[in-house]
Amino acid sequence: MKNNSHPDLETLMFLIAKLPGLGPKSARRIALYLLKNRDNIMKPLSGALDKVYENVARCNICGNFKTNKIECNCSNKNNYDQICVVENVADMWALESTNVYSGQYHILGGTLSAINGVNPEDLLIGSLVNRIKGNLVKEVILATSATIEGQTTAHYIKDSIKNLNVKVTKLAHGLPVGGEIEYLDDGTLFSAFKYRSSLNSD
Amino acid sequence: MKNNSHPDLETLMFLIAKLPGLGPKSARRIALYLLKNRDNIMKPLSGALDKVYENVARCNICGNFKTNKIECNCSNKNNYDQICVVENVADMWALESTNVYSGQYHILGGTLSAINGVNPEDLLIGSLVNRIKGNLVKEVILATSATIEGQTTAHYIKDSIKNLNVKVTKLAHGLPVGGEIEYLDDGTLFSAFKYRSSLNSD
Repeated sequence: MKNNSHPDLETLMFLIAKLPGLGPKSARRIALYLLKNRDNIMKPLSGALDKVYENVARCNICGNFKTNKIECNCSNKNNYDQICVVENVADMWALESTNVYSGQYHILGGTLSAINGVNPEDLLIGSLVNRIKGNLVKEVILATSATIEGQTTAHYIKDSIKNLNVKVTKLAHGLPVGGEIEYLDDGTLFSAFKYRSSLNSD
Repeated sequence: MKNNSHPDLETLMFLIAKLPGLGPKSARRIALYLLKNRDNIMKPLSGALDKVYENVARCNICGNFKTNKIECNCSNKNNYDQICVVENVADMWALESTNVYSGQYHILGGTLSAINGVNPEDLLIGSLVNRIKGNLVKEVILATSATIEGQTTAHYIKDSIKNLNVKVTKLAHGLPVGGEIEYLDDGTLFSAFKYRSSLNSD
């Protein structure tokens, strides 16, 4: 679509269109909305971006966002006995919102992927080993996704810590809540059947 | 969803979620994407917002964005004989992309709406009258939407310029290209039938 508009506006729309889930049309709509709301949205948004750029950084130890510039919460906590390993911050937030686990997290920052050139050095695996050693961790919960990359990463981590005398667990595979058997894929159904649990013990 | 994240990040996600078409989940996704692309997207986006905030303003005469701070293109052009009146910039861009019309546009900045408290003074109607008078315009094309507000606004403008001895036209109603008669609404079908055109004259 031809836009005879201001070059600064073009740049803004070009950048907005790069954001995940957005394209040229939604970028245009957002840019016009921002221009209509110059002082109550556009100005604060620019300020918020600057603040996040300045103040929010990832911790090199746990992978979460640091609560302030100098140090992360994770270094104040010692002697936790469980650690839950996730791929990214969104996964941690998803788990936190279930309230099933309130212990320490370790955020890898992605998954191993030969195609995308992500090697073990690119993920926070070394610091995970140090955290496990340093805090007398008894259980490492591998909460990576049930994708090939997620499972490969989990397998690699399990191998890396096999000498540490620590229990390693992974999330259960099975029927999603509300899932109808008829429509489930073979892999899920296979796992759900294989790891069936006894009702007698309830 | 509970997010134990940085307050600056919370502010950023809150603001992104206010943009049209986005909600809390897409805002979170975008914020995390921005943090992953600090220097190639987040920093330039903030700069682009500042530049647009500083440099892009609406012209008080034609309603389009000014090409620079001081004056708008519209004041350099004189003695055009057609003017196309649209509700907003997006409508103008949509028309421009069809290449059906390359003359002057006049952007009202919205539609009259009793519910939303938009009165004639809130739209650029006064300056439209001045432009028509000052430039010997022969035809005013009212390209407002086929909504109640759009048609009310068109009607109001027609009334405002009825003494100016200028031809006033509006966009045709009818079948959209590719539209199947069976599925069209009554209003469109009624208009398409009423304003049917003769094939003999082709």
